[in-house]
Amino acid sequence: MNKEKLQDAHKFKLWKQNLERNGLQIHGVEEKFTRHRYNGELLFSTLMLDASTPEGDKIPPICFLKGEVVCIAMVLIDESTSEKYLLLVKQRRIAEGGYTYEHPAGMVDDTKTPIAIAIQEVKEETGVEITIEQLINLSPNGRLFPSTGTSDEAMYFYACEIRMTLKQIKALDQKAMGTTYEFERITTLVLPFLEGHKLVKNTNGLLLNYLYLAHVEDWELIKKLKI
Amino acid sequence: MNKEKLQDAHKFKLWKQNLERNGLQIHGVEEKFTRHRYNGELLFSTLMLDASTPEGDKIPPICFLKGEVVCIAMVLIDESTSEKYLLLVKQRRIAEGGYTYEHPAGMVDDTKTPIAIAIQEVKEETGVEITIEQLINLSPNGRLFPSTGTSDEAMYFYACEIRMTLKQIKALDQKAMGTTYEFERITTLVLPFLEGHKLVKNTNGLLLNYLYLAHVEDWELIKKLKI
Repeated sequence: MNKEKLQDAHKFKLWKQNLERNGLQIHGVEEKFTRHRYNGELLFSTLMLDASTPEGDKIPPICFLKGEVVCIAMVLIDESTSEKYLLLVKQRRIAEGGYTYEHPAGMVDDTKTPIAIAIQEVKEETGVEITIEQLINLSPNGRLFPSTGTSDEAMYFYACEIRMTLKQIKALDQKAMGTTYEFERITTLVLPFLEGHKLVKNTNGLLLNYLYLAHVEDWELIKKLKI
Repeated sequence: MNKEKLQDAHKFKLWKQNLERNGLQIHGVEEKFTRHRYNGELLFSTLMLDASTPEGDKIPPICFLKGEVVCIAMVLIDESTSEKYLLLVKQRRIAEGGYTYEHPAGMVDDTKTPIAIAIQEVKEETGVEITIEQLINLSPNGRLFPSTGTSDEAMYFYACEIRMTLKQIKALDQKAMGTTYEFERITTLVLPFLEGHKLVKNTNGLLLNYLYLAHVEDWELIKKLKI
């Protein structure tokens, strides 16, 4: 297996390009630790950046290089009652080691567009096949950042509404999904929107719910959201 | 200067405790790269965790140890018109190297409560003195996570409404604040709420605006939010 070099990695090139576009003068980048995927692709890297700003300052140097991420709110709508359900994925996460309930999400590489990755991740993590036309772009003015001070991580947010019977909705609950990456063990979870929202403890997922409900102007549901 | 050891760091102990509380069996933690503050305190650390879940799986191993963060929406209200303004801080950030517009925020250590840190950070980053009584707790059911798959980072969200004259509001704009940490150069920015919201590109800040407006039931303003 050939390990991808930092300077060849899509996420590194993208980040460096953005730094330069914003006027930083890069004097050096030290690669402190890099994690590769089983196929050799660079997954994450901890970097120390030596760079000057146009104002003559140094920028705080540490960057956990992570790249771009897509996150999709899968909203299942009961065609007889119009009640909305969230299709979430349940998995253990390093943040606390416990189960998290999150929207399907995945990392963007340079082989596909973010929207194509979104379609692929929804299929891999929930089994549901969707099309480009079904996706609502909820970050139309560009990428959004979960951790501006220490990471390049950048989000693309989407939502997808699917009208189906209650029976079809329930059939998507509690599905054990295959492992996409190493160690990943994912189960689906379908819950009425408000109940699902209460289980979401990640800030991107909570924001995505607000962005979706605001986009479709479901003020009734937005008023009931509780975390 | 004595560099704080990983096993002595508050954020490491807290993370480990949470992993164990959630049933993980920890076989080992490899410290790959650690960044300390000028005073020797452990700031960030990239770790590789070898741990088993109660289901007998391994958890994806990488963790960018960052700790807990407070983030405060400073809402200035014109006492004659009731128009709301956001008091943001402007600084260059590693995510893209450009200027970001964010709510005052800061890292929690074990010397103070999150709410005490919130008060301190608002003072340091904006010059405004606030009290515990003025802070609205917007994450009352516990910490929220920006990056569940690769970091322990955990947010406490607050808002603070202050009624003042328009002249007092304007006086808080464009203040050059002292450097709190190494390399930090911060300027304040005061804008009408909707205009400020449009400049915010970090997901935590956008969520915080929604949480605040929902909490005070300002549905009129929530309906106008655009990113």
